[in-house]
Amino acid sequence: MDSSSPAAFDLGSWSARQLARVEAALSEWVVADAPAGLGEAMRYAVLDGGKRLRPLLVLAAHEAVAGNAQAAMRAACSVELIHAYSLVHDDMPCMDNDVLRRGKPTVHVKFGEAQALLAGDALQALAFELLAPEGPGIEPRVQATLCRLLARAAGHAGMAGGQAIDLASVGRTLDEAQLREMHRRKTGSLLQGSVLMGAACGDAGAAAWTALADYGAALGLAFQVVDDILDVTADSATLGKTAGKDAAQDKPTYVSVLGLEGSRGFARDLLAQALDALARSGLADTQALHGLAMMVVNRDN
Amino acid sequence: MDSSSPAAFDLGSWSARQLARVEAALSEWVVADAPAGLGEAMRYAVLDGGKRLRPLLVLAAHEAVAGNAQAAMRAACSVELIHAYSLVHDDMPCMDNDVLRRGKPTVHVKFGEAQALLAGDALQALAFELLAPEGPGIEPRVQATLCRLLARAAGHAGMAGGQAIDLASVGRTLDEAQLREMHRRKTGSLLQGSVLMGAACGDAGAAAWTALADYGAALGLAFQVVDDILDVTADSATLGKTAGKDAAQDKPTYVSVLGLEGSRGFARDLLAQALDALARSGLADTQALHGLAMMVVNRDN
Repeated sequence: MDSSSPAAFDLGSWSARQLARVEAALSEWVVADAPAGLGEAMRYAVLDGGKRLRPLLVLAAHEAVAGNAQAAMRAACSVELIHAYSLVHDDMPCMDNDVLRRGKPTVHVKFGEAQALLAGDALQALAFELLAPEGPGIEPRVQATLCRLLARAAGHAGMAGGQAIDLASVGRTLDEAQLREMHRRKTGSLLQGSVLMGAACGDAGAAAWTALADYGAALGLAFQVVDDILDVTADSATLGKTAGKDAAQDKPTYVSVLGLEGSRGFARDLLAQALDALARSGLADTQALHGLAMMVVNRDN
Repeated sequence: MDSSSPAAFDLGSWSARQLARVEAALSEWVVADAPAGLGEAMRYAVLDGGKRLRPLLVLAAHEAVAGNAQAAMRAACSVELIHAYSLVHDDMPCMDNDVLRRGKPTVHVKFGEAQALLAGDALQALAFELLAPEGPGIEPRVQATLCRLLARAAGHAGMAGGQAIDLASVGRTLDEAQLREMHRRKTGSLLQGSVLMGAACGDAGAAAWTALADYGAALGLAFQVVDDILDVTADSATLGKTAGKDAAQDKPTYVSVLGLEGSRGFARDLLAQALDALARSGLADTQALHGLAMMVVNRDN
C-alpha cells in the first residue's frame, strides 16, 4: 500500500479530473462525420452519460503502474465504447426492449433499429481502432496487448458469452456457481479487463499483474452483487433506471439466490478481497483503485 | 510482374489448397464451446459457406510480399469473421430481413434474433482476438498494424459507414460518385483491407504498398459492379441468392446508373486498373492476385 494516508486521497476530485479528460477524448474520437447519420447515433450512444466506471478503472490502474498516459486514455475510451455498444444492442427489441436509458430514448427509439445495430457495430470497431494508432506514441507491444485484452473481455469468453448465458437463463433457476459464471463473463470480464488494460500501459511485474487480476475479478463481481441489491432496495429515481426490473423479468439475481443480507455480506467479502489484492500487489500508488472499489460497493445508484 | 507465364499458374488448384487451410483454421478458431448456444450460432454463421474471397486476397497478398504465414492465416480468418458477422446482422429483420442465405435458414431464423445479434458481436470481437495472439510467432508491430487495418476497414469509415449510406439510399437516386462512395466503404474497404492486411504480414515497400492499395480499390469496386450486373443477368439458381433483389428493393445499382453495357465496360476498365497496379508494384509473385482479379470480374455467380 501507499505510505500516504488513504484519507488524504479525494476520489471525488480525482474522478472529476479524469472524467473531464475522458469526455473530451470521447468527444474527439467518436466522430460526428461518419456518414448518413451513423456518427450522430454513435455520439448519442456514448456522450453525456454513465458513471464511466470502466475508464476510471483503466486510468487508476495505469497510475498504479506509472504507465503510458496516451495509451491509457485510448484504452479508457475503448472500454467505454465496448460498454456503450453493448448497451445499444441490449436495449434493442430482440433483447431487453428498453425504450429509456439514463432518462433519454434509447438509440433504436431515437434513430431506428437498423441504425442502432450499425452504430453498435461501428462502436466496437472504433474501440479497436483507438488501441492501434499510427505514430510513435505507443509501443506496438502495448497496442497488441491492449487489443488482445479487449477482444477477450468483449467476446465469447467474456461479455458476449455472458449475455448468451443471460438470455438462456430467463425463467430458470441458477445456483450460485452458475450465477457467478454468468456475471464473471457478462459484467466482470470487461471490468477486470479495464484494470488489466490500465496495467498493460506500464510494466507491472507478474505478481502485481496477478494481484490486479484478482482485484478486478473481485470488484467486477461486487459490482454485480451491488447492482442486484440496488435493484431491490433503491427507487427508480435514485437508480436512474427501472428498479425491480430483474424480478419483473424473472431473471436470477444474487438477492434471489443469497437473500438481501446474504448479498450484502457477500459484497463486503468481495470488497475485502479486492483491497487485500491491492495490498499484496506491491504497487506504490493504488489510492484511486482503492477508492473505486469502496465506491463500487458503497454506491447508492 | 513475375517472369513466369501467368498461364502456368492454376488459380483453381491454388485456391483449393488455400481454402482447405482456411476452413481448417476457421473450424479450429471459431470455438463450439462458447456458452449457451452462442458457439453453435457463431460456427453456423461462418463454416461451410461462401466464396472466401477475402481470405484468398489476404493469402495472395501475403505471398506477393513473402510475409509471415502464421500472421497471414490469422488475418485471412479475421476478415472472413468480419464479413460473416456483417451478413448475420444484415440479414436481421430490422435490416434486409432475409430468411435464406446460401440455401440455408439465416442465423436469426435458426437461432433467434437475440442470439444472432450476439453471435455477430462475438464474431467481430473474435476477429480482433485472432490478430493479437500471445507468443513469439508474430511481431507486435505486425499484430498492431493488422488490428488497425481491420478496424478501419470494418468501422464507420469503412463497412459500417457504407451500410449506413446504403440504408439511407433506398428509394433515392444516387449519382455515380455517390454510388461509388457507398460501395467503396460498404464492400470495397474490407476487400482492399484484405489485400493490405496480407501485405502487412511482410515488408512491402512504400511503392508496393501504394500499388496494392490501388489494386484493392479497383478490385473492390469491380466486385460490386459485377454483383450489380449479375443481379440483372443471372438467374437465382446460378447466383445462389435471389436475383433481381436490388431492383425489387429499389436500391440504386451500377446497372441503373450506367446501364448494362456501361457497367460491363466499367468492370473491364477496373480490371485493367487492378492488373496495371500489380504490374507497377515491383513484387515478384503476384500470380494469385492476378488470378483473383480476373476471377472477380469474369465470375458468373
